[in-house]
Amino acid sequence: MSVRQVRGGITTPRGFRVAATRAGLRSGPGPDLCLLVSDGGPVPAAATFTKNRLRAAPVEVSMRALRASRGRIGAVVANAGCANAGTGHQGLDDARAVQALVAKRIGVANRHVFTASTGLIGSRLGVDRIAGALPTLAPTTGRRADAEAARAIMTTDTVPKEAAVEVDLGGGRTARVAGMAKGSGMIHPQMGTMLAFLTTDAPVAPESLRDLLRATVDRTFNQVTVDGDPSTNDTVLVMASGAEGGAELAGASRGAFAEGLEAVCRSLAEQIAADGEGAQHRIDVSVIGARSEREARLVARTVASSSLVKTAVHGADPNWGRIAAAAGRSGARLDPDRLAVRIGSITVYDGAPVGFDERAASRALRGKVVGIGLDLRLGKGSAMAWGCDLSADYVAINSEYRT
Amino acid sequence: MSVRQVRGGITTPRGFRVAATRAGLRSGPGPDLCLLVSDGGPVPAAATFTKNRLRAAPVEVSMRALRASRGRIGAVVANAGCANAGTGHQGLDDARAVQALVAKRIGVANRHVFTASTGLIGSRLGVDRIAGALPTLAPTTGRRADAEAARAIMTTDTVPKEAAVEVDLGGGRTARVAGMAKGSGMIHPQMGTMLAFLTTDAPVAPESLRDLLRATVDRTFNQVTVDGDPSTNDTVLVMASGAEGGAELAGASRGAFAEGLEAVCRSLAEQIAADGEGAQHRIDVSVIGARSEREARLVARTVASSSLVKTAVHGADPNWGRIAAAAGRSGARLDPDRLAVRIGSITVYDGAPVGFDERAASRALRGKVVGIGLDLRLGKGSAMAWGCDLSADYVAINSEYRT
Repeated sequence: MSVRQVRGGITTPRGFRVAATRAGLRSGPGPDLCLLVSDGGPVPAAATFTKNRLRAAPVEVSMRALRASRGRIGAVVANAGCANAGTGHQGLDDARAVQALVAKRIGVANRHVFTASTGLIGSRLGVDRIAGALPTLAPTTGRRADAEAARAIMTTDTVPKEAAVEVDLGGGRTARVAGMAKGSGMIHPQMGTMLAFLTTDAPVAPESLRDLLRATVDRTFNQVTVDGDPSTNDTVLVMASGAEGGAELAGASRGAFAEGLEAVCRSLAEQIAADGEGAQHRIDVSVIGARSEREARLVARTVASSSLVKTAVHGADPNWGRIAAAAGRSGARLDPDRLAVRIGSITVYDGAPVGFDERAASRALRGKVVGIGLDLRLGKGSAMAWGCDLSADYVAINSEYRT
Repeated sequence: MSVRQVRGGITTPRGFRVAATRAGLRSGPGPDLCLLVSDGGPVPAAATFTKNRLRAAPVEVSMRALRASRGRIGAVVANAGCANAGTGHQGLDDARAVQALVAKRIGVANRHVFTASTGLIGSRLGVDRIAGALPTLAPTTGRRADAEAARAIMTTDTVPKEAAVEVDLGGGRTARVAGMAKGSGMIHPQMGTMLAFLTTDAPVAPESLRDLLRATVDRTFNQVTVDGDPSTNDTVLVMASGAEGGAELAGASRGAFAEGLEAVCRSLAEQIAADGEGAQHRIDVSVIGARSEREARLVARTVASSSLVKTAVHGADPNWGRIAAAAGRSGARLDPDRLAVRIGSITVYDGAPVGFDERAASRALRGKVVGIGLDLRLGKGSAMAWGCDLSADYVAINSEYRT
């Protein structure tokens, strides 16, 4: 294995510093503003954004920054408490004001500053509060700063989400990849209010970074589903400081880096699914034997997002009919006579109903992590998706979010 | 108006009789088997079926019957308690056995008998029980027989669903259109476990009936969403006895009939939404100003099926951001600067956030029927969708369905 998980966070890769504070953008305690900076000024960066047509102002501003800078970012400013979405031209002005404040503070052009926001849609961003808090931020490295930053982007998340790996690039070279994320509500394929920031000290060119990020996001973050509502603000950003040194990655070293990036994204995706609003179980859906990887992803995602599957898991009911029916409506090619369905390690359907130990299957559904497997026996496409059970707590959390 | 709602059910149109009984296909009291027959033998019929690839055996058998008979059906047998889905070749044999029993009882060829089932996926159909119950059925007309039949197809429905209209066809001719339906769980575009049977005494040719049914189902049943899980068994069937007499419908009389068919389907769709599992509110989403009717339908359906919109209604929270965000992710073209959103009669977003009376908007969300309106201001496409709020009761019902 060229990838090794390590304890760490956003500044584990060399060349980055981070700081967080409470700017007062939301009620309650804890930090709500964080600033991530690159030591060496603007570095190669790539991002993927929500497909929602109601894009938040910070998404618009960051998309333009990436284009104008040709993928070179020197700082990221992110806040919780306010999504700055549905705020019209005023919202764009506010996001640009924050971008300019950070650019001035760091000493880079505006186009090298990336912004992200999460929280309530439709309320105005507290630019003055951010302006007041920015000078107090002293970016640094280490576990404590990393964890504070991960906390500063939380909304209804119950735990901060971080991941870090070391990657053996070959030839005696080692690089690090790390990230932090927030998820919880509004999580779905096409990225529901999810922010993820990734760093690496490997030397990767912007175009290469973009290609690798897209492929990785399709297999990880876009396969996480909590409630089917992709948000206005979803953003995944990766920055590559190149501080590890050496030549730009190519061939086997690029492959090793891609593996590290996927490991970090997958860990964050799993943490997001496990912390879905009101969730008691993470649901890992594994699909093999589909006609293509795309169809495998579709089946996995549809099963993981089915309300009836989610409630069946919540009730520890090994109702394979709901799993098969969700697969059947996914749009992927499927033959009921070939399909096999597994709950944990127990086969519950195999081309036709089979006798199985219902109590053992029910026990498998009571675990912290519930595995559901489907073998379509039509081809070689495989994929994973991550979801969570649907509980009465989800309803309570979302019925009372604003009040 | 050429369409007038009347009290009535499946035998309000002339030429049909119905009967229901308890065959013991499920535990609990009440009828679970019904038989609808055409007095004059096979008559023109058309149907739409689930798009789920895991099609139940009765769906397969009925599709073949319609093809083999060139759209001429003489009897419908429907049961609750068992979906006969995911049952492989055995399931097909069982559905065919029931079809043959009914064909013999009525005196028509097998291909003129339509079958439908609803209930648990994966369990075997009790053919012997159906064989035992069939001879006791004496189809008749009238409110009592109609209501018993509507009850015989209920699963987790709390009330039977019926609708009937009289249609003025012009030239002194009057026809009737009526129907019964079941819905409740697993309801979604592409028809989630929903059965609907429609009758009319207007003279309509099979091809004409098929065209009219498809267009109507797209605007009504396919716009109902309870939990996003289309089922294995969804079926909408219409039969035209022609008992009203006269020439086959064309021109204005065909238009009047189409209006009557849509009125019946829309009423049944509304009843299904209002009776969604655990629902306390029906949500009517009305979209205007879309680039096309198809895009309007997409927006209406996406808003009505959003878990975050459903929980906001449940909590009486006028959170327009969730409505706008759902519209934004629907796939339809949308410009946030033009979009207007309304809750009840209160405008809550109009190209930008607007001040509004939050208490009045919250009151509008407490009604039995909650109206949500969106004006996209991009074109002339309009559509409706019907949904319901998401309550803790939904979770309870679906966590405990089997146990």
